[in-house]
Amino acid sequence: MDQKLHRLKEILTEISDLRYSSAVLGWDQQTYMPPGGAEARGNQLALLHRLAHEMSTTSEMGKLLDDLKPFAATLDPDSDDARLVKVTARAYEKATRVPTKYVVEFAQATTLGQQAWMEARAASNFSIFQPHLEKIVALRQEYASYFPNFEHPYDALLDDYEPGMKTAEVKEIFDGLRPKQVELIKAIASKPKVDDSFLHRPFDEKKQWDFGVEIISQFGYDWNRGREDKAAHPFTIEFGINDVRITTRVDPSFLNSMLFGTMHECGHALYGLGATPELERTGLEGGASLGVHESQSRLWENLVGRSMPMWEHFYPRLQEVFPQLSGISLDKFYKGINKVQPSFIRVEADEATYNLHIMLRLEIEIAMLEGKVAVKDLPALWNAKMKEYLGVTPPNDAKGVLQDIHWSSGMIGYFPTYALGNLISAQLWEKINQEIPDLPVQIRSGKFDALLGWLRNNIHRHGAKFEPQELVQKITGSKIDPAAYVSYLTRKFGEIYGL
Amino acid sequence: MDQKLHRLKEILTEISDLRYSSAVLGWDQQTYMPPGGAEARGNQLALLHRLAHEMSTTSEMGKLLDDLKPFAATLDPDSDDARLVKVTARAYEKATRVPTKYVVEFAQATTLGQQAWMEARAASNFSIFQPHLEKIVALRQEYASYFPNFEHPYDALLDDYEPGMKTAEVKEIFDGLRPKQVELIKAIASKPKVDDSFLHRPFDEKKQWDFGVEIISQFGYDWNRGREDKAAHPFTIEFGINDVRITTRVDPSFLNSMLFGTMHECGHALYGLGATPELERTGLEGGASLGVHESQSRLWENLVGRSMPMWEHFYPRLQEVFPQLSGISLDKFYKGINKVQPSFIRVEADEATYNLHIMLRLEIEIAMLEGKVAVKDLPALWNAKMKEYLGVTPPNDAKGVLQDIHWSSGMIGYFPTYALGNLISAQLWEKINQEIPDLPVQIRSGKFDALLGWLRNNIHRHGAKFEPQELVQKITGSKIDPAAYVSYLTRKFGEIYGL
Repeated sequence: MDQKLHRLKEILTEISDLRYSSAVLGWDQQTYMPPGGAEARGNQLALLHRLAHEMSTTSEMGKLLDDLKPFAATLDPDSDDARLVKVTARAYEKATRVPTKYVVEFAQATTLGQQAWMEARAASNFSIFQPHLEKIVALRQEYASYFPNFEHPYDALLDDYEPGMKTAEVKEIFDGLRPKQVELIKAIASKPKVDDSFLHRPFDEKKQWDFGVEIISQFGYDWNRGREDKAAHPFTIEFGINDVRITTRVDPSFLNSMLFGTMHECGHALYGLGATPELERTGLEGGASLGVHESQSRLWENLVGRSMPMWEHFYPRLQEVFPQLSGISLDKFYKGINKVQPSFIRVEADEATYNLHIMLRLEIEIAMLEGKVAVKDLPALWNAKMKEYLGVTPPNDAKGVLQDIHWSSGMIGYFPTYALGNLISAQLWEKINQEIPDLPVQIRSGKFDALLGWLRNNIHRHGAKFEPQELVQKITGSKIDPAAYVSYLTRKFGEIYGL
Repeated sequence: MDQKLHRLKEILTEISDLRYSSAVLGWDQQTYMPPGGAEARGNQLALLHRLAHEMSTTSEMGKLLDDLKPFAATLDPDSDDARLVKVTARAYEKATRVPTKYVVEFAQATTLGQQAWMEARAASNFSIFQPHLEKIVALRQEYASYFPNFEHPYDALLDDYEPGMKTAEVKEIFDGLRPKQVELIKAIASKPKVDDSFLHRPFDEKKQWDFGVEIISQFGYDWNRGREDKAAHPFTIEFGINDVRITTRVDPSFLNSMLFGTMHECGHALYGLGATPELERTGLEGGASLGVHESQSRLWENLVGRSMPMWEHFYPRLQEVFPQLSGISLDKFYKGINKVQPSFIRVEADEATYNLHIMLRLEIEIAMLEGKVAVKDLPALWNAKMKEYLGVTPPNDAKGVLQDIHWSSGMIGYFPTYALGNLISAQLWEKINQEIPDLPVQIRSGKFDALLGWLRNNIHRHGAKFEPQELVQKITGSKIDPAAYVSYLTRKFGEIYGL
């Protein structure tokens, strides 16, 4: 068995190296590649993806896994080796159930879909995108049909991003959350608006960049094992557990983009840098799920980054860098960066309204997949739900149903992970504050090492060994639950808005 | 046959995409990669190289080539398809003659060799490097032994960089050149020294960078299909024929590094960007040889970049950017950038002395490969030849026999390509000036399009279709010959030094 396990790891090492190679090409594509390089880069990435897929689905791999499964069952179920066999077998089974013909058709449909979506958004004309989305939805339904063991077709999609998570669970979580968030937003709307005009002023780009670097250096981001570059759509990317890079964007006339975007990506990166070396190049060194990953980015961006202790420490320094803030009190600054304002665009949403953007998308995705809503009716449905949940109606489809790239890339089932990340971050935050009772004091004095140590020990080091529900249960004693997030929002915004 | 040719091209496309993927990883390694990423990057590159090697040496490839060779013989020998079969078959035969065991051993020896060389150079202690170089020389002798058809063992090595070139030819060329260059340098040494102290002053780094960009933009470098980044050891790299990037370094207290380094790399890049699209992803879109590549970089760096017409155009602008040059006349500037000064370091050598650095290395390489000189005797031999050819003796081995990385990487046979590039550049320059008689006038008014057009049409578009001697013969009517270079040097430095 040792030999078979060794051979399995050998294959996984190569798959991992190929995937990291693709990641380097993808990073360059989004940061430095000149426009002329686009076509060739598409070919290069397609080849590396195909090779990685081929290596992951050989009959040798299937045979090894079949032989190793009974052996793994004799091991401690939480051991690296048992988990390795389990996670690899899962991925193998998913990958081999889908016919190559489907994979090719899906790649073509989403390539065309992304082009059509870009045009449609630029023209704010949904009908350009409609036939493509119809095709993509049909293909995602077909994909789900290859996994008849799932209760609900949406389960098969969700499972690609949140291993083991069921649609019914997500629905239940969100059903508990929705009325409370809607109620909170209504209460906030009845109060006087917060002034954040001082954040919408010119801020020197270089100084913004340097300040972001200063913050995340203090958070514990290791510049020997990462770097930061500019990108139009910021992201974090891993080339191994010792090279995890972030990207950010700087808005010269709004401080928040750089400030909270940088902390957000740093949160992702700290997760990637924290996997235990034993998991390197096994495919298990990545995060447990997109939702758990998002819990890390949101924790640093919001629970830490938009907190009062954070700015008790950093605000004097920020005022030093930007003397134009010298007339703005800490309290006014804190309220400004936490302003609640229902708006059209998800990626610009504040903490109190963000999840409602997700719920709307989740409901539409499930209905599309069940065939209960036709693609042509999406714009009207979108606007109706925006009115119902957020009290606003998008002026056009570009700021409504066409705002996100996800569906055009076939990523149906992805959105809920953002909201799950928010919920998990609050659950973790409660636990962390129990275990590190003086955490606010530490943050107030710019110390983040105990926090990072806790996250490393409880989350980061495990990589993808555990499913998200398992991991949250292990750490907090309960599964993913909206109570902590609701109580966090209510307390925080109750204070800010005097509810 | 059409089907077989199609299949061959299909395989070559994948090999090409894999090689370009490696190139992206290599570029990042030398420009942006944080130190922590080094180990993983080594693994990733090793895998991509191995996969490309495997794809290049399959029995399917061998069979296809065997079947296609008689067919190719019926085609116009200069047609793309005939050349494709010829060049691919050559590469296949070279790659399959070398046992995998050798490839692995060579990779290990050169990895260790490079580490030892870095230590040895830092300590200026040849004995640290000596056993590694002994091993590498023995391995290169073994490599040559796999090609018994070559007349001379050095032929097999040279042929990897200059396809079709023979040691005897290179020796003959250099034997004709050496006495004339030595004589010229002696004549220059008897004259008063040129003052270039004004180039060794502080020059703002950002302004230097921008000036380099300005020059190569005017040369015709296409920023939509390339970019420039900083690197400790500047290089040019291709990720396809529409993404050819350069790197440069900026010395804050010496203008020449950035100025001529940038033009040099631009010359390489213009070659890479100029291949005809039909050759893309065939393996024939690269240059004909390292020597021909170097002819392009040297042509833009020296024949254009260190010429009087160039600075008649650019010098007023340079003075505008750097007002500290306002007291320096054009004539004084021109002489300064063309100062001849025998020195220890090849990469810092001027046009008149450069080739002598190469000849010394070539003679040592041949003698090592023939077993006529022992590695332990290299430092003394090096210093004796430096004295003989350049009249100077290195103060230590770091500035002598240990200065170049090449041998530690197993690159024996590479050095002559630099000198061949110089010779070819002068031959081309004569021909170009015959065909574009007003070229100096064009350059004086900042026009480079006719020159670039000529290079594209005569050299760039052919990619690697022709062997270097063939190509030079086609264009100039004679093979590589030192006469043009000697006459160029004599005329130019005769004027500058009043010989």
